[in-house]
Parts: sequence; structure tokens; C-alpha cells
Amino acid sequence: MTPTITGFARSPDQGRGLARDMRVRWALEEVGQPYEVRLVSFAEMKEPAHRKLHPFGQIPTYEEGDLALFESGAIIFHIAERHPGLLPKDPNARARAIAWMFAALNTVEPPIVELSMAKIVERDKSWYEERRPMLEDRVRARLTELSNRLGDADWLDGAFSAGDLMMVTVLRRLIGQGQLEKYPTLLAYIARAEARPAYQRAFADQLAVFTASQRA
Amino acid sequence: MTPTITGFARSPDQGRGLARDMRVRWALEEVGQPYEVRLVSFAEMKEPAHRKLHPFGQIPTYEEGDLALFESGAIIFHIAERHPGLLPKDPNARARAIAWMFAALNTVEPPIVELSMAKIVERDKSWYEERRPMLEDRVRARLTELSNRLGDADWLDGAFSAGDLMMVTVLRRLIGQGQLEKYPTLLAYIARAEARPAYQRAFADQLAVFTASQRA
Repeated sequence: MTPTITGFARSPDQGRGLARDMRVRWALEEVGQPYEVRLVSFAEMKEPAHRKLHPFGQIPTYEEGDLALFESGAIIFHIAERHPGLLPKDPNARARAIAWMFAALNTVEPPIVELSMAKIVERDKSWYEERRPMLEDRVRARLTELSNRLGDADWLDGAFSAGDLMMVTVLRRLIGQGQLEKYPTLLAYIARAEARPAYQRAFADQLAVFTASQRA
Repeated sequence: MTPTITGFARSPDQGRGLARDMRVRWALEEVGQPYEVRLVSFAEMKEPAHRKLHPFGQIPTYEEGDLALFESGAIIFHIAERHPGLLPKDPNARARAIAWMFAALNTVEPPIVELSMAKIVERDKSWYEERRPMLEDRVRARLTELSNRLGDADWLDGAFSAGDLMMVTVLRRLIGQGQLEKYPTLLAYIARAEARPAYQRAFADQLAVFTASQRA
């Protein structure tokens, strides 16, 4: 059965693949699972019909037969569990790959989102410049720890996994902001991920949605 | 094989069960798995020996034979996958319970941690009072959405699951702060969880560590 995911009708990231549907598209491409996309506006996301699928009124969602899921982490885990290619078969390696998924979402992403949100919402506030170094320090601490752990390995734990997919999508939010550029190890890690054909197909598809929305 | 987890030698939460080892203790109690606890100081957490287990220098970790895991989400999922009691058998219900684990950690916890951190780190800053309503609004939005979804159900999706366990530990950080108290639905949800014998055993055990650290 072909699953249907949701994405932004007009993505605020200007087609840079930073919205959370990109993760799900990429995972589906990695495992070779065709999918449909239903685009939702910001207004539609907050309406009861969408909230039935996603209690917090966000994207992405995932519908497949009588299963409806929300949360990109849960959707990618569901895909990874049902198709080969995103989680190792060895039970211990599998558990560690799942740990990297959670680390990306619960340890690395929050300070990155906090910094990004301050840049958007608090840029014109009197305290913005004084607070920014604190927010940047929190991000820097995570990047340093991640870079140290990755070392000269290609991926976080053996072969490419859903943990790398998640971590790369989290790190990509920082591209061009100045901090990530001080970590050549992490830049190379992201570049390796972006070179994957599945990533490129997913990126092109989300960009096509943005390009079409600009013409509309 | 008896697993070993790590916890704070001196928990900053004063024994209120808000540190992330509480989640893991609770999950282990729910499934009836005995475990050992190794206490680590703040200095030890940042040393290479601990960073080998946890790249971000935090607790909890989980060691079981030749498996070492970090991230409370991953540890609880590992426990839930290997023992009955924390995830439904029906595949769709299981996927939805996992979605609630991710929702707790990636959608509900970040604004709660952001507010808590501001209260600790920025309380004496000139902007603290002006920023606080914004942070409280973000928490309120999530509490409203969660309360609406829960409605008059006992648990988030059918029977008690790892999703409820995670969500309750996330919500408990707000107890006594004033916001949660406006949501009787959520207070009752937390009370139902806290009434579980497994919760009470886990809470007593982490409190005993704090009490002993005060005597030392």
C-alpha cells in the first residue's frame, strides 16, 4: 500500500530541505518505497481534520491503510523497521543506531532549534545580541562532542543508518550560519550524506514543491 | 544479565525524580527487570571514560553485556522491545505508542526544558521577565494540545505504554511551576501514572540515592 505523507504547501525554508518532511522523503527513498504527498497550508495544519492526524498541528504525518502516525522520528523508525537498509540486523548495532536517532532529536536538535527560533522571533529585541553567545555556546558544545565522536569515521556507528539520516537533517539547519563551518569533520559527514542518490531524489522532490508554490 | 545504568551522584533535582535516570528506573520496574546503578559526579560525566559510553557526557547510560546505550528514549525503547508490558503487540498500536515516545521527547520536552533553563540560567538577567511570557506561551500551547488529545482517556492510546511513561516524566518537570495546574486532565493523568507500583518503586530508589548523598 502506498503511504501518504504531509508537507508544507509553502515551506518557510525556501526549498532548502530543512522542513521535517525531508527526513521522511529521504528515508522512503533509501528503502525504495514510493509515496504520495499531501500538501497542507499553515491554516489547515491547525484545523481539526489535521489535528486528528497530528495532535500538535504540525507536519509530517504518515498514513498507510488504517495506520496514521506523526513525529518524524516515529515515522522514520516505522519505515526502517519494515524495510531493509536503515537499521543494522545485529541487535546491538540496531539498538545503537536507534540511540543516534534519539540523540539527534533530543540532544542535538533542541539547542539548534532554540538558536534558529531566536534568530527569527527575537532578532529585533534589545537582548538578542547579548543572549546569542549563550545560545551559540550550547550549539557549539554539541557540535564539538559530535565531531569528536565521529572522528574519521564515515558514519556514526558502522554503516549508514537511520541515526545518520536523522543527525544529518538536524545539522543541515545550521548550514551557512557560521558555526558548522568550523567543523570540517561534520561538513564532510553532511556532504557524504547529501551525495547519496536517495537524498538527492528526496531533495529534488521537496524543491519541486517549493518551486511550484512560487509559480502559483 | 543484570543491566547497569548511570545516575547523578548528587541530583540537582533534590530527589524529586526529575533526572532522566528516573525514566529508565521506572521502565525497568514496569517490566520487572532488576538492575544496578552506578552513580557519577558532574566531573566524571565529562571525562573520557564516561564519554565513551555517552558522547554528550550525560546520564543515563545503559550497559548490558557488550551492549552500551545512551539517550533515555533509546534505552527505554530497548527495554520495551525486549520485555512485555511497555508496547502493545498490535503493530499499528505499537507504532503509535512509539510516536508518543518521540512526541514527548521532541515536541513536548524542548519548550519545557527551555523554560526551565531560563529560570535557572537567566533569572537575574534584565530580559528575563520580558521573555518569560513567550516561553510560557510555548509550553501552554503544547499542554493545551496534549490535554485536548487525551480528553477523558486514561492513557494516550489505549493501554499504558512507554509513550505514557515518557510523556509523564516530561510533564513532571512542570509540577509546582503554575502552568500544569491549569490542566486538571493532565494532573489526573500524571497522578494515575504516579500511582503505579513500578513508578513508586523507581521513585523511592532515586530518592534514596539523593537522601544518602545529603548524609555523605
